[in-house]
Amino acid sequence: MPLIAALGRVLAADVAASTDLPPFERSAVDGWAVRAADLADAAADHPVVLRRLGEVYMGAQARVEVALGGAVRIPTGGEIPPGADAVLMQEYADVGGEGVAARRAVRVGENVVERGIDVREGQVILRRGRRLRAADLGILAGMGMAEVGVFFLPRVAIMATGDEVVSPDAPLGPGQVRDMNSPALAGAVLAAGGSPVLLGIVPDDRQAVDTALGRALAGHEMVLVSGGSSVGERDVVADAMSAVGPPGIVVHGIAVRPGKPTVLAAAGEIPVIGLPGNPVSALVIFDIFARPVLEALAGMDAASRTWDRVRARAETALPAAGAREDHRRVRLEARSDGLWAVPLPAGSQILTSLAQADGIVVVPPAGPGFARGEEVEVRLL
Amino acid sequence: MPLIAALGRVLAADVAASTDLPPFERSAVDGWAVRAADLADAAADHPVVLRRLGEVYMGAQARVEVALGGAVRIPTGGEIPPGADAVLMQEYADVGGEGVAARRAVRVGENVVERGIDVREGQVILRRGRRLRAADLGILAGMGMAEVGVFFLPRVAIMATGDEVVSPDAPLGPGQVRDMNSPALAGAVLAAGGSPVLLGIVPDDRQAVDTALGRALAGHEMVLVSGGSSVGERDVVADAMSAVGPPGIVVHGIAVRPGKPTVLAAAGEIPVIGLPGNPVSALVIFDIFARPVLEALAGMDAASRTWDRVRARAETALPAAGAREDHRRVRLEARSDGLWAVPLPAGSQILTSLAQADGIVVVPPAGPGFARGEEVEVRLL
Repeated sequence: MPLIAALGRVLAADVAASTDLPPFERSAVDGWAVRAADLADAAADHPVVLRRLGEVYMGAQARVEVALGGAVRIPTGGEIPPGADAVLMQEYADVGGEGVAARRAVRVGENVVERGIDVREGQVILRRGRRLRAADLGILAGMGMAEVGVFFLPRVAIMATGDEVVSPDAPLGPGQVRDMNSPALAGAVLAAGGSPVLLGIVPDDRQAVDTALGRALAGHEMVLVSGGSSVGERDVVADAMSAVGPPGIVVHGIAVRPGKPTVLAAAGEIPVIGLPGNPVSALVIFDIFARPVLEALAGMDAASRTWDRVRARAETALPAAGAREDHRRVRLEARSDGLWAVPLPAGSQILTSLAQADGIVVVPPAGPGFARGEEVEVRLL
Repeated sequence: MPLIAALGRVLAADVAASTDLPPFERSAVDGWAVRAADLADAAADHPVVLRRLGEVYMGAQARVEVALGGAVRIPTGGEIPPGADAVLMQEYADVGGEGVAARRAVRVGENVVERGIDVREGQVILRRGRRLRAADLGILAGMGMAEVGVFFLPRVAIMATGDEVVSPDAPLGPGQVRDMNSPALAGAVLAAGGSPVLLGIVPDDRQAVDTALGRALAGHEMVLVSGGSSVGERDVVADAMSAVGPPGIVVHGIAVRPGKPTVLAAAGEIPVIGLPGNPVSALVIFDIFARPVLEALAGMDAASRTWDRVRARAETALPAAGAREDHRRVRLEARSDGLWAVPLPAGSQILTSLAQADGIVVVPPAGPGFARGEEVEVRLL
């Protein structure tokens, strides 16, 4: 892909330096290329006058040789001319006619940037599996690449199930709820590096779910099914998912809050994940189970993920949720005495909790939980 | 825009709830809708038998009234039927024939989710200026919106100047360097919520720079000029930028390392920012000066930015850089004793520094700096 289109994409192969960088010895400052030995005795009260021999131009080979007692004008980044072994900063030189009066001495190598000091030819700069950031595009350009090989985006089929679920643009009848999961999961898939494909809303009917799963398994690398919340429906979706194997369902029900009814399944090599119908739960479970799978399918190296954890103090106690690992949404507040994690309602306040959450605190099961004021780790959303 | 296309875009107007949410009283569990008074005496060793009156279906209005001594089967999320004031969890009920034996009492309101407990009609859920995240797309769908109004992306013209600068796909001649800044800045503009327009490389020539600035000021909302590093060129670019006014140049040279030669200018209402030629400096200065301006042009509310700061301990001392505020690139390392910030080379090791940096530590000028092991704030990249 062209470099700029590759932002956020995953690098398909290691990128090694094709040359030393910098590819030539260059000046770190604006000044005069000199022989250090000529200025051994130079001082503010005892300037040494050098002959002005010429100039180094940016983007051109340095051709003027710095002969004994000579100086060549050089800009920052200019190539060190033959014969020179140091650069005198222009602040310490007075120019008059053909002469340059140096008011201090220089060490050999002073203000000279060595060839290859940044990168040696053949050195790997960016590794396969890295998700490309803005700076990386500059690095690739610096390596002489105008295009870059990236992995394809995994295609993720997304469907919502439930007789009570209707599309956001349909009028809301009695007992009905709008499909919040499909757009939220599509956004989460995009953000995680996948290509979402919305298959719509499927009624609570075994044949309809089977047909939809069949469509989902053709031409996609991963399938997400968000369940409704009715008792019967849960069975219908789980039965349909167990039939997609081998291996079919691997895990049904997890000790996590929210997200108990999660189903992890696979049809051959295609992961099929059943997420809860509650949108808060669906996004939490996506993050724990679906995102790592999607990142692996996308070729991402987990070690190259950007940092997403901060430590903060819990504004209220966070008790353990019995035998379940509790994933609590929190809002972050920077105060004069540090960063605080303010727990959001754990219950049914879905929209409020989604809109305000900055991160998640995991409370381990069956333990003491966290006390008010205790430091906790927050995974940023 | 359609919801899914709006990920990462900036909301153009407040979004208020069009109805209460939930829009009806509903059950928090699978169970039986009952009158709490009927079960006042129920206990494990003294079950109270209720008459089974019917069932609430998902996505349909609850029509069966719960008469005295009756129970109606209800799924999680189902509408509470008329007459009921509580829901008994199915775990505490034994069903036989026409009867339901309740093995415990319930409080009035138990397992009933109040109408409007999450959101009241008219309450603002998402504010204008918010950059839309995955969960927000779900929220908008929940509000009945299949499309959403977002601000246009500001168009940002990007050009690189310098006789020594060549395109990444051109062969590298003596003394030449590749244009790393244009793709890196384009990536940074995209990530910050702008639309980058690359105007290419402009030679160190006043007329060429004037012409390029003229093109940049037509049809773009912001202009970024990355300078080369030669003495003469710096003057050419600065002279050309001072001529774009009023107001022209507002700031020329800043007490920041890296980034001393930064130029802040404007042509009427169009900000024109001159960035250093060094790619590390250019990205640091973009973050400090250009990104906030771009976010404001994009309509972003700074308060809605995601959290981007962590605290870590400095692995080596970070002394102050004289009178300049020092922006040091660091790598983060999670160790058993906490998070450490490992400073990267501050000098000319450009690619290494760009590839490895996780964040920036700001060292205040003219102070003691930070000691080895001292806690510092890291702004994540």
